[in-house]
Amino acid sequence: MPDDISKGLEGVTVAESELSAIDGDAGRLIYRGYDIDDLAEGATYEEVLYLLWNGELPTRDELAEFADAMATERAIDDTVIDTLTALAGADERPMAALRTGVSMLSGGEPEPDVNPRDLDAARRKGRRIVAKIPTILAAYDRIRQGEEPLDPREDLSYAGNFLYMLTGEEPTEVAEETFDMALILHADHGLNASTFTSMVIASTFADVYSSVTGGIGALSGPLHGGANQDVMEALLDLDESGKEPREWVDDLVAQGERVPGWGHRVYNVKDPRAHILQNKLKHLSEESGDDKWYNYTTSIEAYLTEDKGLPEKGIAPNVDFYSGSVYYELGIPIDMYTPIFAMARSGGWLAHIFEYQEDNRLIRPRGQYIGPKDLTLTPIDER
Amino acid sequence: MPDDISKGLEGVTVAESELSAIDGDAGRLIYRGYDIDDLAEGATYEEVLYLLWNGELPTRDELAEFADAMATERAIDDTVIDTLTALAGADERPMAALRTGVSMLSGGEPEPDVNPRDLDAARRKGRRIVAKIPTILAAYDRIRQGEEPLDPREDLSYAGNFLYMLTGEEPTEVAEETFDMALILHADHGLNASTFTSMVIASTFADVYSSVTGGIGALSGPLHGGANQDVMEALLDLDESGKEPREWVDDLVAQGERVPGWGHRVYNVKDPRAHILQNKLKHLSEESGDDKWYNYTTSIEAYLTEDKGLPEKGIAPNVDFYSGSVYYELGIPIDMYTPIFAMARSGGWLAHIFEYQEDNRLIRPRGQYIGPKDLTLTPIDER
Repeated sequence: MPDDISKGLEGVTVAESELSAIDGDAGRLIYRGYDIDDLAEGATYEEVLYLLWNGELPTRDELAEFADAMATERAIDDTVIDTLTALAGADERPMAALRTGVSMLSGGEPEPDVNPRDLDAARRKGRRIVAKIPTILAAYDRIRQGEEPLDPREDLSYAGNFLYMLTGEEPTEVAEETFDMALILHADHGLNASTFTSMVIASTFADVYSSVTGGIGALSGPLHGGANQDVMEALLDLDESGKEPREWVDDLVAQGERVPGWGHRVYNVKDPRAHILQNKLKHLSEESGDDKWYNYTTSIEAYLTEDKGLPEKGIAPNVDFYSGSVYYELGIPIDMYTPIFAMARSGGWLAHIFEYQEDNRLIRPRGQYIGPKDLTLTPIDER
Repeated sequence: MPDDISKGLEGVTVAESELSAIDGDAGRLIYRGYDIDDLAEGATYEEVLYLLWNGELPTRDELAEFADAMATERAIDDTVIDTLTALAGADERPMAALRTGVSMLSGGEPEPDVNPRDLDAARRKGRRIVAKIPTILAAYDRIRQGEEPLDPREDLSYAGNFLYMLTGEEPTEVAEETFDMALILHADHGLNASTFTSMVIASTFADVYSSVTGGIGALSGPLHGGANQDVMEALLDLDESGKEPREWVDDLVAQGERVPGWGHRVYNVKDPRAHILQNKLKHLSEESGDDKWYNYTTSIEAYLTEDKGLPEKGIAPNVDFYSGSVYYELGIPIDMYTPIFAMARSGGWLAHIFEYQEDNRLIRPRGQYIGPKDLTLTPIDER
């Protein structure tokens, strides 16, 4: 392959952005200049959304206006519920149900006919999508368990309302805080594959429903969003095996497999989001009195980061390595982990769309043709 | 902006491909070595699909096996019809209905649990999607007109069956041939935005339903697939205006508008597909005895390609400039033109997915962060 082909676009810079920056060597992530640790500890997901979309953290009045408007847009049409019910009957995976559900939302859009280049309208539409994703997901989970979906509540936070709609109970303060923090940590992360998908679609001035639907599709892939689920399934396997974590790792590696949740194209050291979630997992474990998952993950990390000559040597844990256990402690079904990632990241997709469309350029790369030329078409009966 | 940012990825080569090549200066398009003119005249859409997906034109037996398998997969579940009915009730645009319909198809996938890296399974799933897209589109058009959707017929060609399901009547030979040719012309065209969207999604090993749904979203954008519809609306405007084509063009340009269907990022001369469709339009006009649209388009082209000092000087007609009139002559509703483009191009999206996944690399570019750094988070009440 010639040198000038950028397979996977690794190292190719496609746009300037003021949204997020990753320092893969320092293990640092910032959103619009703020360290992810500070935002995780000192802001809510709604504040972070406002920051990403508007460039500055909101005052209390600005936040109230933004969050209230979004809270009133949480309900979804009965027709969407009907489609989710049909999908549940077919045992559809939650990510696919979310993809279909979000795609269907455009049918209920109150401003269907605005100019596609009206960027203010795009922001309002984007806010509606983010408002409704938790409702779609919680409804889907309840429907497939034979329960009635719950109407969203406007008096709860974004994170709190989702947990309420999912479980039927108002979450504890710790659960709400933890989930809110997980949403913040997953809100944006440079031009990953799903964010880039959303941008490519938006660069045609297709509407935000198309862009977010595409982002969900990309995130559903096992090379992208599926890893948090893999981690939890691996930890459950470890738990059932009765092995010591070190022994379990050795056996896994001996089978030619990799420990999920390790390594990242962008980070060379431990993902800062993994640090934060590891601490949160510790707190959750202390509260619940069950430190099993914290001990498993921390033991595996200690073993792998010692120089054992394993294939994972020098590779560090990423965000997925700890998010699975956190969601598990919160009682969230394992196949909802990737959809929750989509819920959080939809805010980042939209932030990149809004930013890119301000100075839009259709994204259309080239392929290098290496096939035959000048072939003569032979009639079918002479082939 | 620094030189090393490739905004829009213009000129950036992201992959090798044996699928299609465009010579923008010569006005030439080939699929796997065969000239588009030869394929349009000497092959069917099913043969071209086989060629794109398998690398060689089929023998008669190979074609029969391929086309028959696809024909048996044309039917869609009642649950998809129900969702389309709900969307028709909301007056949803056909491209959005198609996006939702295709996304929903995965719920009826007979092989839902195969390994995402099983490329043979991906081909079977892709064939099912291509088989069902005409059924979704024809059903949607009939439902919104208050008619019952028709079951697909296995005894008709891909093109013929779509026209039958749309109109309720078996198409004439000329109509079927013309539509089949239009599908061939639109089947592939390098790494355009929708094809690239499909590839980015597929590079995560998300399933083909996610990739094709994303492609539909990208194609729905006015900078990409929407132009054939714009052309026809412009020609209808010309017809209603009672003006001469030259006068109408002058007035349009004087208002600061552009004639739709002119110019293309890749072609510097007349799009070869425009040539083919122009000839086909002439034949259709001769058969129907109504040469109005042929005369309008040909007059506009003659006027604009003479050196009039207009903004369009040196810009040539693209495929959209003639496809609209062809579809109009075939009696297809104007807002179905872009969905028909998606029907044809779905074959190309899948061809690129199958090819890229053979030697997959996650597509993940970089953004250049130009925002602030090291900001201190101020508590909300102090902002």
